[in-house]
Amino acid sequence: MTTFTVSAADMEPIALGGAFLGTGGGGDPHIGKLMARAAIEQYGPVRVIDAEEVSDDALCVPVAMMGAPTVMVEKLPRGDEAREALTQLETFLGRKADALICIEAGGLNSTIPFAVAAATGLPLIDGDGMGRAFPELQMVSFTMHGVAATPMVIADEKGNSSVINTISNQWTEKLARAQTVEMGGAALVAIYPMQGARMKKGILRNTLSLIKEVGETIATERAQNRNPAEALIARLDGRRLFTARVVDIERRTTGGFARGKAILKGVDADQGRSFSVEFQNEFLIARDGEGTALATTPDLICALDADGGLPITTEQLRYGLALSFIGMPSDPQWRTKAGLDLVGPRYFGYDQDFVPLEQLTKAA
Amino acid sequence: MTTFTVSAADMEPIALGGAFLGTGGGGDPHIGKLMARAAIEQYGPVRVIDAEEVSDDALCVPVAMMGAPTVMVEKLPRGDEAREALTQLETFLGRKADALICIEAGGLNSTIPFAVAAATGLPLIDGDGMGRAFPELQMVSFTMHGVAATPMVIADEKGNSSVINTISNQWTEKLARAQTVEMGGAALVAIYPMQGARMKKGILRNTLSLIKEVGETIATERAQNRNPAEALIARLDGRRLFTARVVDIERRTTGGFARGKAILKGVDADQGRSFSVEFQNEFLIARDGEGTALATTPDLICALDADGGLPITTEQLRYGLALSFIGMPSDPQWRTKAGLDLVGPRYFGYDQDFVPLEQLTKAA
Repeated sequence: MTTFTVSAADMEPIALGGAFLGTGGGGDPHIGKLMARAAIEQYGPVRVIDAEEVSDDALCVPVAMMGAPTVMVEKLPRGDEAREALTQLETFLGRKADALICIEAGGLNSTIPFAVAAATGLPLIDGDGMGRAFPELQMVSFTMHGVAATPMVIADEKGNSSVINTISNQWTEKLARAQTVEMGGAALVAIYPMQGARMKKGILRNTLSLIKEVGETIATERAQNRNPAEALIARLDGRRLFTARVVDIERRTTGGFARGKAILKGVDADQGRSFSVEFQNEFLIARDGEGTALATTPDLICALDADGGLPITTEQLRYGLALSFIGMPSDPQWRTKAGLDLVGPRYFGYDQDFVPLEQLTKAA
Repeated sequence: MTTFTVSAADMEPIALGGAFLGTGGGGDPHIGKLMARAAIEQYGPVRVIDAEEVSDDALCVPVAMMGAPTVMVEKLPRGDEAREALTQLETFLGRKADALICIEAGGLNSTIPFAVAAATGLPLIDGDGMGRAFPELQMVSFTMHGVAATPMVIADEKGNSSVINTISNQWTEKLARAQTVEMGGAALVAIYPMQGARMKKGILRNTLSLIKEVGETIATERAQNRNPAEALIARLDGRRLFTARVVDIERRTTGGFARGKAILKGVDADQGRSFSVEFQNEFLIARDGEGTALATTPDLICALDADGGLPITTEQLRYGLALSFIGMPSDPQWRTKAGLDLVGPRYFGYDQDFVPLEQLTKAA
């Protein structure tokens, strides 16, 4: 992989790819795209660099939005909270950041770091901590590599902020989540400050390139009036899960998360069958009408509008919408014991072990 | 007033006076007394200085416990969290503290600062921010004088902490309260860092001397087998409210507070009458059986065990306990519009205006 630059126009496929790999969550990347475009137009393009280009003693900092995507849709960031969070973290550490990181290669957090990178002139590293979106702070590859989430800074659009120091990344999640809820359900964070050497061990590589490519694939397919599902499955080693229409949707925003469940009736090849998908910000488990799992976290469950072919987030789910669901294998790190302890089905309260998507879909 | 030193033995009357002026809340000073005694025995006596002895550019810092007293009874502080919070605040400010302050002259927070003062060798200023105990962070005279609660540090016994910066003292309360709840319901804080000049304008003077004197009065009276109520009323310009026995008590620990209500039946001179007291950590309103207020916040409502004469905190209320309730006028600052906006009956959700204790008891 080599360094590449990202223009304002490039934010279009990046937001599209980010929405897809957001697995239904992570917030609508559209808002972050607008922020990133404005910042790039004002300050110039963003440089995305390969992890190997970063020196071992460089200070690398992920910047991200934290909270319920349902809230972010209505509570727009002012635009400079993430940069403010970064600045405060730099002040606390007594040192300037050398490079930025995307905490998750999906949703709003796949676009917001571009806005901060443009505004600060810092390069963004080609990679992320999830290879998708996940709902909680500790759910990053960095946790598996012993990187501490703190000191971190959390800031809201009103001007409130905290520097948090904790004894574990799970405690970071607890304390930062409570702040997020008080701050109105969404906040911006600068977190997991780490040296280049540790970043290189923990980061999931080249996922920003991947996001851009996914977005370009979706755009190209749609331009030719094809649903991008088939091309994406081929590119991402994915599996077709089902095509179905939403017949019931329940959702609640509790504890700073958008949680819920959708019931769907099959259409086209899946006519006559039933399905369900459950989510906590992101899609976590997809089942058939008998309750048999078709795909579970940490494998990716992504949805495309069956008609238009655009990625659909959980907050866009509504009665009558027809969707193509696609499953994709997660990064091998997530399928280890340590990975499944952090993000496996049991962590989220489902009474079942993780079975790789490839086996589940073969059985079905 | 002059400087005086506080020995380990002096902590006995200070804890006793602090329990009385804690108006039923602020946590049992006993725990703080044990911490202070141990610290004084290890490091030497504490110097309590008059506010005028502090230079205008000195850094003065209140240290305190935050949370539900009901929790503190079971979740003992490790002993050095408050000092740790102070050290972190000093690091953040890039400056050492010159003097410590009691945030409230009542409950646990009237004794804990002595432990920190002994351990750090810093003097403690003779005064506090309430002249009693109150349940929320912004409820201090300093708020009325424009002193910001932040930057503040909040720390728990496990090793988690946050540096909080907010746009108002009400926001500090919201964000720090959420952290307190996540930290298990109680935490230690270093807060309201202020220069000597502002301290002198805002602090309620000589309340540590008063606490000690109140404690000594209680001890002297009890030693002579007298209930201290009468002597305290004379010394503090207080009013006898009623003597009654608890016949019903409801309590709940919600949002980091110990809330509840006690129903009492009069004894002795009040035989045949009914009363009630409501509390949020502290006693906030006392009424007769017809619901007519006898005393309301911010005036002080204090309870003594009718038999033994010891101060009783809300968490010690239990069925059958007979209590002497005493009212005392609050500091004149609390009776202003600004003061009542912060701590008047309407702030706590009672549908009535503040009427000074002197008028209420004259009417009764």
